[in-house]
Amino acid sequence: MPTRRRLAVYPGSFDPVTNGHLDIVHRACRIFDHVIVAVSANSLKAPVFSKDERIGLLRLALKPLLKTKKVSVDSFDGLLVHYALRKGADAVVRGLRAVSDFEYEFQMALMNRHQAPQVETVFLMPDEKYTYLSSTLLREIVRLGGQADRFIPAALLPKIRQKFRP
Amino acid sequence: MPTRRRLAVYPGSFDPVTNGHLDIVHRACRIFDHVIVAVSANSLKAPVFSKDERIGLLRLALKPLLKTKKVSVDSFDGLLVHYALRKGADAVVRGLRAVSDFEYEFQMALMNRHQAPQVETVFLMPDEKYTYLSSTLLREIVRLGGQADRFIPAALLPKIRQKFRP
Amino acid sequence: MPTRRRLAVYPGSFDPVTNGHLDIVHRACRIFDHVIVAVSANSLKAPVFSKDERIGLLRLALKPLLKTKKVSVDSFDGLLVHYALRKGADAVVRGLRAVSDFEYEFQMALMNRHQAPQVETVFLMPDEKYTYLSSTLLREIVRLGGQADRFIPAALLPKIRQKFRP
Amino acid sequence: MPTRRRLAVYPGSFDPVTNGHLDIVHRACRIFDHVIVAVSANSLKAPVFSKDERIGLLRLALKPLLKTKKVSVDSFDGLLVHYALRKGADAVVRGLRAVSDFEYEFQMALMNRHQAPQVETVFLMPDEKYTYLSSTLLREIVRLGGQADRFIPAALLPKIRQKFRP
Amino acid sequence: MPTRRRLAVYPGSFDPVTNGHLDIVHRACRIFDHVIVAVSANSLKAPVFSKDERIGLLRLALKPLLKTKKVSVDSFDGLLVHYALRKGADAVVRGLRAVSDFEYEFQMALMNRHQAPQVETVFLMPDEKYTYLSSTLLREIVRLGGQADRFIPAALLPKIRQKFRP
Amino acid sequence: MPTRRRLAVYPGSFDPVTNGHLDIVHRACRIFDHVIVAVSANSLKAPVFSKDERIGLLRLALKPLLKTKKVSVDSFDGLLVHYALRKGADAVVRGLRAVSDFEYEFQMALMNRHQAPQVETVFLMPDEKYTYLSSTLLREIVRLGGQADRFIPAALLPKIRQKFRP
Repeated sequence: MPTRRRLAVYPGSFDPVTNGHLDIVHRACRIFDHVIVAVSANSLKAPVFSKDERIGLLRLALKPLLKTKKVSVDSFDGLLVHYALRKGADAVVRGLRAVSDFEYEFQMALMNRHQAPQVETVFLMPDEKYTYLSSTLLREIVRLGGQADRFIPAALLPKIRQKFRP
Repeated sequence: MPTRRRLAVYPGSFDPVTNGHLDIVHRACRIFDHVIVAVSANSLKAPVFSKDERIGLLRLALKPLLKTKKVSVDSFDGLLVHYALRKGADAVVRGLRAVSDFEYEFQMALMNRHQAPQVETVFLMPDEKYTYLSSTLLREIVRLGGQADRFIPAALLPKIRQKFRP
Repeated sequence: MPTRRRLAVYPGSFDPVTNGHLDIVHRACRIFDHVIVAVSANSLKAPVFSKDERIGLLRLALKPLLKTKKVSVDSFDGLLVHYALRKGADAVVRGLRAVSDFEYEFQMALMNRHQAPQVETVFLMPDEKYTYLSSTLLREIVRLGGQADRFIPAALLPKIRQKFRP
Repeated sequence: MPTRRRLAVYPGSFDPVTNGHLDIVHRACRIFDHVIVAVSANSLKAPVFSKDERIGLLRLALKPLLKTKKVSVDSFDGLLVHYALRKGADAVVRGLRAVSDFEYEFQMALMNRHQAPQVETVFLMPDEKYTYLSSTLLREIVRLGGQADRFIPAALLPKIRQKFRP
Repeated sequence: MPTRRRLAVYPGSFDPVTNGHLDIVHRACRIFDHVIVAVSANSLKAPVFSKDERIGLLRLALKPLLKTKKVSVDSFDGLLVHYALRKGADAVVRGLRAVSDFEYEFQMALMNRHQAPQVETVFLMPDEKYTYLSSTLLREIVRLGGQADRFIPAALLPKIRQKFRP
Repeated sequence: MPTRRRLAVYPGSFDPVTNGHLDIVHRACRIFDHVIVAVSANSLKAPVFSKDERIGLLRLALKPLLKTKKVSVDSFDGLLVHYALRKGADAVVRGLRAVSDFEYEFQMALMNRHQAPQVETVFLMPDEKYTYLSSTLLREIVRLGGQADRFIPAALLPKIRQKFRP
């Protein structure tokens, strides 16, 4: 019996991408036929890495998955759900790590559902070893010379270090 | 490009099924090719409705979906993940309503992942009008003569009322 | 300009009443013209004190307020909102101590609003020195011989001690 | 038996007012004889709408209630409790939507109680359809061209849109 | 400069002890000179393992530490703080895993402080791989034939399995 | 039997120190032989008081304890755990007031443990009367002319007031 292909958008700031994000991408690939990792370009606050740098780091980190055509990397302006509708996505994927994530994510998911009920929000849980990881904390660790190799792919570390200690 | 079919198990006590559960089943059907709604029979505490009654109420409530072959109703003993593996499920679906759900669900999902890493747990959010609905509260409302018609399909109401006011 | 009298119901198990409950009664009296402290008699679980004992302890603890006619003590069966409607109450008063209270109280308040939208739920915060007080914990303290005099009126202590150490 | 009039202050940034705020004003009017909706002018962070714009939007949104003399709109500098005392308010009203609100609101309410114990803080719960609504999220939705008509009175929408897309 | 020895009590049901508990014992030993692991015998609910079985399992699990005289195993009736005072303990140690623990633990710690201000409560965080582990969940896993070897010392597993599958 | 001395670092912004911080210092002194109160100088956001002012206020507030040699005041750049290791600290002490603290503190503690497993994080609970106190709220109270004498030592109040109302 044939079945239709299912597409998900995994949006985020990815400033920069961490192993926690990559873990969610891999999990999403087991549920969906294709996952678009989409850098949000309309954030109001100033990111540390430019939109192009963030896309570049994601492409580097996801190189093996990009080859399988299961994943693509993109960016968007404007409302996430408008982007998801244009792409024909069935779902938006979000990682849930902790209670503090939960309430923000629920607020966003309910608002997104109000804007576009046909796009479902799907929550996945990263590996427990990434529960306490965030891009903000990672940047701080790198900036102050801490051990970051558990939290980002080895290939990205020099580029991220360079940003803080040029 | 062909794609493989994806199967999810939606486990629960369903004592009895509510519109909140049905809302999650419909959402799961948009992500997965088939959803098995699986009554847990190994709960230690005494349910109000027998396993067979709970399956019967689910079949009644899901009649239109059962005809489409998108959904089936079943029950299981033993560990959920063992059941999910036997069925070849890609994922376990759980509804998340509130912070109090969240911690329990995370504990269970991490334990299930430890038992069977190949079965992903996927969290969906019910419609906001079911946020405060639980089977426990529904039973209390029916038992004390409150208005329950928003919370269960009309066809089930007589059977559920009869249980409490025979 | 004349104004209408406002009536609130403060429901609970009061098994037994604590200083935290009394604190909420006093606060409610500053907002409402009359407060009915209403012992819930339809709880499914076995209370330690009988309905009549709980009413008796409340009457003893609230003696000064009862004389002012600002407060009365009563009990109810069935749904709280049905009782509140029969009494012509404008509001149900609930104390909020902590996050764990919050979610349960919200679930109940939303369900009550669905049953009777004209009865508002009003949340008050007890004095910070009662934040960690509950009837369950109080019973445990008394049973095991701890210091309970901060948590219940002196007049009630002998009656409560007698229950556990007859 | 005559009763005294009770007055509440409902403070906030109202940047801009949303249907969630209006819902709380209506609920407060059922408990109190008069409600002063008070724009906080001493916030440290830069608001999007000026104090006068926020008062103007509130007056427009509350026009029917202002006519009944049940509600007035005002603004204040300095500590909220000093303002409430000057106005002779019995209570400060705050809406509680979610756990994240809860802790901040409790911290503020306990501090306010320390400053002025005679002013009670009363928490009300907005309609469940406004649970996920905040002024911050509303501004983002309007700025990015999303559907906002469920969240603000129709009369305000043009003025709010104009701010972001002049 | 000489310093006085510091003693901590680590109380619990330990029904049965898990690797999460053992992790906390090891951490406590780095802060305190001696740690008494104390089985609470006054719990109202029926434990699965008898007090003597729980002590036996703790002694087996802690054998290497018991030899160092850094740790001892005991049990107590009555209030924890009365026991801690009799033992001359400086502190009570508790593990904190999640938000749901937090509120219960805070309530208990504040009540204990009220009973005996000279006994400090010290919270330690178990290894992240035990965040989702509880004795309740462990018993369920063993009872239903799941993998439990990550969660209890190998030497205890046969004794625990035997309880459920004699 | 001789025992080794145990050293803790109590880090923070202390912008400015409050009675809640001092309460934690006193509690830490009962567990540890020496406590270094360490002002974090590498915060990204602009503090209201300079590093030297914050150290000065701490020295003033801790004068009696400094004389006993149980406590010292210091500051650090870079990662907290690197500083703790240089000082030979056994533990980092943190105060836990509320659920919102909890998640942030857990994230930091797990990250610190990853960076330096030999430094344990120990959580203490301040007196319940400081539960709702934060430096941010204290600054706001002083700036707006509220009562702050419960929240900071009397000797510090003029210096803190002067900052806001020169």
